[in-house]
Amino acid sequence: MAHIKLPHQVLQNFCLEAFEKFGFTSEQANIITDVLLLSDLYGIESHGMQRLSRYHKGIEKGMIKVDAQAEVVFETPVSAVIDGHAGMGQIISKDAMDIAIAKAKTSGMAIVTVRNSNHYGIAGYYAKMASDQGLIGMSFTNSEAIMVPTFGTMAMLGSNPIAIAAPAKPYPFFFDASTTVVTRGKLEMYRKAEKQLPEGWALDKDGNPSTDAPYVLDNIANKKGGGIMPTGGAIEQTGSHKGYGYGMIAEFFTSILSLGLTSNHTHIGDVGGTCHGFIAIDPNIFGDAQAIEDHLSTFLKELRETPATPGNQVYTHGQKEVAAYAKRTEEGIDVDEKTVAEMAQLAAFVGVDFNKYFGELDLDLSEYQSEY
Amino acid sequence: MAHIKLPHQVLQNFCLEAFEKFGFTSEQANIITDVLLLSDLYGIESHGMQRLSRYHKGIEKGMIKVDAQAEVVFETPVSAVIDGHAGMGQIISKDAMDIAIAKAKTSGMAIVTVRNSNHYGIAGYYAKMASDQGLIGMSFTNSEAIMVPTFGTMAMLGSNPIAIAAPAKPYPFFFDASTTVVTRGKLEMYRKAEKQLPEGWALDKDGNPSTDAPYVLDNIANKKGGGIMPTGGAIEQTGSHKGYGYGMIAEFFTSILSLGLTSNHTHIGDVGGTCHGFIAIDPNIFGDAQAIEDHLSTFLKELRETPATPGNQVYTHGQKEVAAYAKRTEEGIDVDEKTVAEMAQLAAFVGVDFNKYFGELDLDLSEYQSEY
Repeated sequence: MAHIKLPHQVLQNFCLEAFEKFGFTSEQANIITDVLLLSDLYGIESHGMQRLSRYHKGIEKGMIKVDAQAEVVFETPVSAVIDGHAGMGQIISKDAMDIAIAKAKTSGMAIVTVRNSNHYGIAGYYAKMASDQGLIGMSFTNSEAIMVPTFGTMAMLGSNPIAIAAPAKPYPFFFDASTTVVTRGKLEMYRKAEKQLPEGWALDKDGNPSTDAPYVLDNIANKKGGGIMPTGGAIEQTGSHKGYGYGMIAEFFTSILSLGLTSNHTHIGDVGGTCHGFIAIDPNIFGDAQAIEDHLSTFLKELRETPATPGNQVYTHGQKEVAAYAKRTEEGIDVDEKTVAEMAQLAAFVGVDFNKYFGELDLDLSEYQSEY
Repeated sequence: MAHIKLPHQVLQNFCLEAFEKFGFTSEQANIITDVLLLSDLYGIESHGMQRLSRYHKGIEKGMIKVDAQAEVVFETPVSAVIDGHAGMGQIISKDAMDIAIAKAKTSGMAIVTVRNSNHYGIAGYYAKMASDQGLIGMSFTNSEAIMVPTFGTMAMLGSNPIAIAAPAKPYPFFFDASTTVVTRGKLEMYRKAEKQLPEGWALDKDGNPSTDAPYVLDNIANKKGGGIMPTGGAIEQTGSHKGYGYGMIAEFFTSILSLGLTSNHTHIGDVGGTCHGFIAIDPNIFGDAQAIEDHLSTFLKELRETPATPGNQVYTHGQKEVAAYAKRTEEGIDVDEKTVAEMAQLAAFVGVDFNKYFGELDLDLSEYQSEY
């Protein structure tokens, strides 16, 4: 499927107007847009513009409530529990991490858990909020069940990413990954491209391997069984129980500690119920924050300089994202045609003039019109 | 290779006397023995009696200093940094988690990091210390470098386990796993059994797959290149960069935050330098601890009751360990003959009468005498 290169600034302005038209304030639209664009700028294509249609549908069906006011329902100097009241995940989560950061600056560290929210974009965005301020940040979310636990046939956990970010030079340590072997967004990209999935990613409704993206995605959406394997695959020999365990850690810091819906109970009917967890830690509680940053930077450098297999190099987490950010800010963001068609439909729905932003590209999106 | 069933109580008494003969106090010998035996009782055979010879060698060559006094070098109400001064890992770590628990009971949560320690046994032991007291516990360690980062040819990270434990009924949530696809101890068991490794576990010195356990272990010990793959394998398609990332999280909470040696610098000459990290969290900082325990218990039950592939069932983390503990406490612990031979040699070295404990088994260990 063809990709279209769209300028970062144009996408940003389009998203801002679209989310304001949905009823969000200018400040809120800025937050949502910032999270989505960071994903595309970091090269995590599955969580940027690609997700717009899911937010669109979520708002349309009432799963995401535009005017929700998140509420702190419990707190201590090192913690808070937030009820998102079904609001937009990015807005709730930005506030939640701001609270964690403020408490960490006073108390040394803090954990904030969130229940009754919605999809929050890339987990790493919130971890990075902390590292941008010299702290260590962690971010977790559960999601609609897509992960089939080891030996199971039904999806019971979400993609359940774990993200961590910490200051380092020349760029921060930034790790953000689903605990499933791949995300649902990645399967959606294969479906859009009409490509078979690689072996080792997905399971059919009986728990057997499947490479059929539309079939697996339909089964997930309709709770028919099957889904995506944990990192480590579907058998213990390759570490399936480990990926399942990392998924449990994410579930624990989100739905369990917030008393929210576990992944297997989210996204039933028009209830989302996604839960998140945010941790901020001030490195000064371990002595000299600068020495810690230097120590981390040294180790990351040693990793990048370690010998690699022919034609390869060892990357450290965050390295590729910084390179992608620089390149895409400069050259534009590649968006696949079908996603652009979804953006056009979203524009028509909320009353944004699509051609004002993308008219000069003279796009022919007619083949996608019926699929939304 | 034949296994010999040894009564739990006899093994315990043997270890207690052996560690006292090494010069540890009775209380210290109790801690070390308790950690080792919990591993065997939980069925984590690679970290119990199987490791005795490595402790023996570590003490003999001066890497582990029997009379070391660990020292708190920095602390706040929510944190501490400990210099282990090259003492025995179990003793340092039991104290470190006790400190984390005490601080969590006062401040809500705490992180204690440790540098300059030695191998501490199973990570989960320390996480369980917290959950036994109604808290959430996490435990991390780095280790001699065995994990080859994605695209690399040299081991740069350790087995770097992440463990978490939390109260639940009918038994705690207990997850303890290396971030490598398997541990070095597992490779040692394959070497002892003279078996080929499964595909997808290890790499030769050039970063190509290898199934030769003695060769890979020799390369690791002599820093010749290669080692064990991260969970997720050696390529990005199967999530190698994720296992490498989880390994980085463990490295971060151990060597980075304690300013200790990163895995690639530990175990050079007679310096061990292992680093650990311990987190304790009081669930009451999120409201009602009992409600959280009940919520977790419900989710774990739903997981155990979810449909499985034919002949299988879905386990929750901690379930198998509790079953193994009950069975092995009752029936005895299976120890392979070569490990028993190592125990006999350790006994001879420190002056413990091996036959006092195991004489009535009438063992023939002659074939193993030359291998130590």
